[in-house]
Amino acid sequence: MAITLGPNRYGKAEVRMVHVDRSTDSHVLTDLNVSVALSGDLDAAHTAGDNTNVLPTDTQKNTVYAFAAEHGVGAVEDFALRLGRHFVTTPSITGALVTIEAYPWRRLGPHSFERGGGETRTARVTVTRDDEHVVSGVTGLVLMNTTDSEFVGFIRDRYTTLSEATDRILATSVTAAWRHAAVPARDASASGPGASAAATETGASAGATRSAAPAADWNASYAAARKALADAFTGTYSRALQETLFAMGRAVLGSGTGLAEVRLSLPNRHHFLVDTAPFGLRNEGTVFHADDRPYGLIEATVLDDERPEAPRAWTF
Amino acid sequence: MAITLGPNRYGKAEVRMVHVDRSTDSHVLTDLNVSVALSGDLDAAHTAGDNTNVLPTDTQKNTVYAFAAEHGVGAVEDFALRLGRHFVTTPSITGALVTIEAYPWRRLGPHSFERGGGETRTARVTVTRDDEHVVSGVTGLVLMNTTDSEFVGFIRDRYTTLSEATDRILATSVTAAWRHAAVPARDASASGPGASAAATETGASAGATRSAAPAADWNASYAAARKALADAFTGTYSRALQETLFAMGRAVLGSGTGLAEVRLSLPNRHHFLVDTAPFGLRNEGTVFHADDRPYGLIEATVLDDERPEAPRAWTF
Amino acid sequence: MAITLGPNRYGKAEVRMVHVDRSTDSHVLTDLNVSVALSGDLDAAHTAGDNTNVLPTDTQKNTVYAFAAEHGVGAVEDFALRLGRHFVTTPSITGALVTIEAYPWRRLGPHSFERGGGETRTARVTVTRDDEHVVSGVTGLVLMNTTDSEFVGFIRDRYTTLSEATDRILATSVTAAWRHAAVPARDASASGPGASAAATETGASAGATRSAAPAADWNASYAAARKALADAFTGTYSRALQETLFAMGRAVLGSGTGLAEVRLSLPNRHHFLVDTAPFGLRNEGTVFHADDRPYGLIEATVLDDERPEAPRAWTF
Amino acid sequence: MAITLGPNRYGKAEVRMVHVDRSTDSHVLTDLNVSVALSGDLDAAHTAGDNTNVLPTDTQKNTVYAFAAEHGVGAVEDFALRLGRHFVTTPSITGALVTIEAYPWRRLGPHSFERGGGETRTARVTVTRDDEHVVSGVTGLVLMNTTDSEFVGFIRDRYTTLSEATDRILATSVTAAWRHAAVPARDASASGPGASAAATETGASAGATRSAAPAADWNASYAAARKALADAFTGTYSRALQETLFAMGRAVLGSGTGLAEVRLSLPNRHHFLVDTAPFGLRNEGTVFHADDRPYGLIEATVLDDERPEAPRAWTF
Repeated sequence: MAITLGPNRYGKAEVRMVHVDRSTDSHVLTDLNVSVALSGDLDAAHTAGDNTNVLPTDTQKNTVYAFAAEHGVGAVEDFALRLGRHFVTTPSITGALVTIEAYPWRRLGPHSFERGGGETRTARVTVTRDDEHVVSGVTGLVLMNTTDSEFVGFIRDRYTTLSEATDRILATSVTAAWRHAAVPARDASASGPGASAAATETGASAGATRSAAPAADWNASYAAARKALADAFTGTYSRALQETLFAMGRAVLGSGTGLAEVRLSLPNRHHFLVDTAPFGLRNEGTVFHADDRPYGLIEATVLDDERPEAPRAWTF
Repeated sequence: MAITLGPNRYGKAEVRMVHVDRSTDSHVLTDLNVSVALSGDLDAAHTAGDNTNVLPTDTQKNTVYAFAAEHGVGAVEDFALRLGRHFVTTPSITGALVTIEAYPWRRLGPHSFERGGGETRTARVTVTRDDEHVVSGVTGLVLMNTTDSEFVGFIRDRYTTLSEATDRILATSVTAAWRHAAVPARDASASGPGASAAATETGASAGATRSAAPAADWNASYAAARKALADAFTGTYSRALQETLFAMGRAVLGSGTGLAEVRLSLPNRHHFLVDTAPFGLRNEGTVFHADDRPYGLIEATVLDDERPEAPRAWTF
Repeated sequence: MAITLGPNRYGKAEVRMVHVDRSTDSHVLTDLNVSVALSGDLDAAHTAGDNTNVLPTDTQKNTVYAFAAEHGVGAVEDFALRLGRHFVTTPSITGALVTIEAYPWRRLGPHSFERGGGETRTARVTVTRDDEHVVSGVTGLVLMNTTDSEFVGFIRDRYTTLSEATDRILATSVTAAWRHAAVPARDASASGPGASAAATETGASAGATRSAAPAADWNASYAAARKALADAFTGTYSRALQETLFAMGRAVLGSGTGLAEVRLSLPNRHHFLVDTAPFGLRNEGTVFHADDRPYGLIEATVLDDERPEAPRAWTF
Repeated sequence: MAITLGPNRYGKAEVRMVHVDRSTDSHVLTDLNVSVALSGDLDAAHTAGDNTNVLPTDTQKNTVYAFAAEHGVGAVEDFALRLGRHFVTTPSITGALVTIEAYPWRRLGPHSFERGGGETRTARVTVTRDDEHVVSGVTGLVLMNTTDSEFVGFIRDRYTTLSEATDRILATSVTAAWRHAAVPARDASASGPGASAAATETGASAGATRSAAPAADWNASYAAARKALADAFTGTYSRALQETLFAMGRAVLGSGTGLAEVRLSLPNRHHFLVDTAPFGLRNEGTVFHADDRPYGLIEATVLDDERPEAPRAWTF
C-alpha cells in the first residue's frame, strides 16, 4: 500500500459581506456570501504540517473585505474574477475557485431595503494561471403551474402503482448554472489589487489562451437568463418535468450570446390531490397536500455543441 | 406528592395545503401551513389511555382539507375561524387554537406563479364556546436601513467595551402579531364561499359575548399593517432599535380600526464595520460583516389602552 | 386611541460559548448557547430613543464570557443564576431571564471529544429583585418504541377515515421542562468555581422571599429526570401518546425532590405502514414510511399540586 | 447554435424508510433515507415529452419499500447494490446511483430505541450493466481537540492579520467517503436476508468485469473506518488541519483491505479565544467564542496508488 495525497483544496467558506455604496444619495446595497477555495503546491501542509505555502484562510477572508473596500463590488462575476486573479499571484497557489451567493433586496427608499424574493443569484469562477471559467446561476427560484402539466405513457412494472395524470400541479425549486464560453482577457486586469487596473479589466486585448470576447454585462446576462427560465417554465405545456427542463435549458442558452452550457437541477415538488370522496365532497384539481419528502429530482445538462467543451472539473 | 394533569392540548401541526381556485380563467393560489390544537375534557386520555373524547389529529387534518374543498379558503383569518368554530361543536372539545402560515406567491400568468418575498403572513385564532380572538401577523419580513441609525448614551459598566455608534446599519427580521379587539359576529363573517353551510354547521346565532362588529376585510387589514411596519421602519431615525420598534407598533395600531395590541419581536441583525486599517484602506460605512450569532433581540407589546385587555393566554 | 408601551424585554441571544477547564490533565468541556433577556425601566428607550437605562446587549455578551473566565461555569442552572443575579444589580434592570442550551460531548481522550447524542440540555432561569425561578429541561431527545403502542376507541365523525391501530410505532422528539419548587438561597448555592466571588458580587444575604432549600445538585437532578423520561417512554404500554406523556411527566416529578411541575411537548412522529399488497408482499409491522409533516403534537403540564403555583409568566 | 441534451439523470430522492426486523424478540431497527438516480435512454422524455422509457420516480420509491419488505435491508451497501442491480434490468435504464443515509439509534430495550449520536452513515453505490462501485462514508461526525493544535509559519501578505497560534482548539465536522477497490461478485454478496431471491432476480451470474472479491462485511468495515477517523483526529498533534486530514485519510485506508481512496471534507469550526483583558481577567485557553461563519474548509483525497483509479464521475 503506497498512500499519497490526491487532489486537494482549502479556503474560507461563507464570508458574509454587505457592501453599501454611498457615492450617491441613493445607497446601493450588495449582500454576498463569498467562498474561496485554493489549490497549488500544498503537499507539505498535508504530509508534514509545514505551512510555508499556505495563505491562511483568515487572509483570504480579509482579502474579500479589502477588495470590496478598495474597488467596490460591481457584478458578482467581476468581483469573483478579481479575487481569483489575485489569489493565483501567490507563488504557491495555482488555482482559485471563488463562489458567490448574492441575496436580493428590494429598494424601499434612498437608504432602505426589504429582503426580496426567495431566489439567490450565484457565480462560480475558476481561475488558474492559464485559464478562466465563469459559471453564473440561480438557486431557490420556486415556480408553480397549476395546470398544463400531465404525466402519462410511462413504464409500468411490478412495482408501479402510479395512475396516469392528465392535469396536475407542476412545481419546482430551480437550481440552474450556465457556463460562459469566453471570459474577458486577463492581462488588462491582472495587476493585483488596484482600482485602476480593475477599471480596465474588461478591456479589449485578449491573452493568447483566452478568447477575445467583449466585456460581459453580467447583470444584464443574469436578468435575461432568469427571465428565460421563468418564461420557459410558464410557457411550456409539460408532459414530463424533463420536457420542461429541456425547454428551460434551451431558453437560457438562447437568452444571450456566449453561453456554452446550462445545468439544471429540478426537484419535483409533489402536490397530491386530496381524496375527499370519503367526506362526500368533490375535489377536481382544487385541494392538494404539498408533500415534503420524497421528491422527484430531475437533473440534466443542455449544451450548445458548437461551443468549446466544458472543463473536466466543472461541477455544480 | 399528589400528581395531577394541568393545562393540556393536542392537535395536528403543519398541514401543508395548497388550494387552487379554478372558478375563473385566472387561477387563485393559496399556499398554507395549518396547525390545530384542541383542548377540552381530555383527562381520561392522559390518565387512563381512554380515547373516548379524542377527535384524532388525523381527523383534524382531514377537516382542514374538507373545509377547503367545500367552502374554499378566503382570508386565512376567516378560514381559521370557520375551522375553530367547527371543532368546538365536538362535545368533548371546548377550545380550539388554529394557526396558519400563508406563503406569498407572485402571479406570472393565468395559472403560473413564482414564490414571492421572504415574509410569511400568519393568523392565530382562538375559539371557545364563549369567546373568539383573532391575531394577525407577519414573520420573516427582513428590513434594512443603511444609515439613519445610531446607538449612544447607554450604560457603561465593567464589562462594557462597545463604542458609541453615530451611523450604523440597522437590520432586522420582523415578527409581528396584532390582536383584533373585536371579532365579527359569526353570522356576519360567514360571507365567503360556502358561508351559509359554515354558518349552519356551527350554529347560526352569534354568542352574546361576541361583539357585533361588521365582517372584517382581513386581507386589506393585513396589507395596511404590513405597509405600516415597513414605512415606520424606513421612516424612523433610530436612536435605539427599541425606538424603531415602538414606532412600528404605533404605526400598526394606527393602520386600521379595531386593533387592540401588537407584539413585536425584532432581532438586531448585526452588521459590523470591517477594520480595513491594517490594509491601509478606508472604510467609511461601506464594508460590513453580517454576523450570524449572537444577535440582539428586542421584544415589546404596544397597546391601545382604550381597548379591552388581552386574554391571559395570548402568546406569540 | 391612547397608545402605550406594554410588557417588553431585550437582550443578547445565542452567545455561543465554549469553556475548557484545564485545571486537571483531563480537560472538562462545556459547550453552551446562552441568551439573556432583561426588563426594567426601559420606557424612554422605546418612546424617546433615550438609552440612559440601557445596558447594551454587547455588554451582556461580554458579561457571559467574563463570568466564565472569572468563575468557571459549573452546572448551567448555577451559571444562569449567577448571571441573572448580576444583571439585576444594574439600577434600571429589575428582571433577568437567562436561558441556556448545553450541547453534549463524549470524551475520547484527555483533551479530545466527540459531539454526543441529539438531545440538548436546557435551563431557563428568571431572576427579579425578589424572586427566582429555575426551570431545567431537555429538547431533541428522540425516542421510539417499535411496538406496545395502540390507538383505538376514538371519536369518529364525518371527517374520520383513520383505522384503529392495535400495534403501531410510537416515536417522538421530547421537549420537556421541569420547574424547581424552591431555589437554593444565594449563599448556599454559591458552591461552584469562583462561588464566593459570585456571592459577594451579588450581595451575600439571600432575599427573604427565597426558600432556604439546600444547594441543588443540578447535574444529578438533570440526569435523574432525563433517565425518568426515557424509562417511562420505554416502559409504558401506550394507548395514546397522551398516556405516555402523563407517565413521563409523573416519572420526572418522582425523579427528585422539589420538582413542582413539568411541561411536555411531544410531536407524534408518524410512521405509516407501507401498503405492499399491490406488489404481492406481506408487511406485518416491518416497513414504514417516516413522514415529515403534518405531525400530531401533544402538549401538557403535569403538576405536583402540593407545590406552590407556577408563576404566571412561566412559559416554554 | 445547435442545442443538444447532455448528461442527465432522474430519480426519487429522500425516501424515508424505517424497517423493523421482528424476527427475534429483540427488534432490529434500520432508519434510512434512500435516494435513487437513474440514467439511460431518456432523450425522448426531454425533447418530446415521451415517457416510454421512463420508470416513474414513484415506482422507484415503491421498489425501495418492496425490496425491504421482501428481502430485508442488511448492510446499507448491500441494500443499495441490490436496488441498483434491479433498476438496470429495466431495458431503457443503463445506470443507477443509489445513495443512502443511515441514522443511528441506540437500544434502550427489546423494542425501544433512542436516536443516537450526530453522525450519519452514508453509502453511495453506482451500478451500470458492466460495472459497480461502492463508496461508504460518514457525515456529521463532530470532533474537537482542546489542545495539541497549532498554526504557525504560514504566508504573510498585505492582507494578513492573523497571529500565529501555538495552542488552539481544533474542531471539525467530518464528512468522509471511502471507495472500495473491488465490489464483491453478485452471487457472493447475496448473503443478507432474502439473498437468494435477490440473486435470482438480478441474474445469478456475476459479470466478467467484476472482481471476485469475497463478500464484504460492510458493517465491520464501516466500524473500523469510523474508529480510524476518530483515533487519527484524537491522536494527531496538528500543525495544520491539512496534516490532521491526511492522517485521517491514511488511517481509513489502513483500517481495512480493499480501500482505494478516501475523500475528506473538513470544515474548520473556529473557536476564537475571547479577549478578557478589558475586564481585567486572564483567559489562557479557557473561554472561546464558537463562531458560525465564515469557516475554513479543507478538502482532499488520499489515495492508495496501487489501487485502480477512481472512476471519472466519482464525486461526493
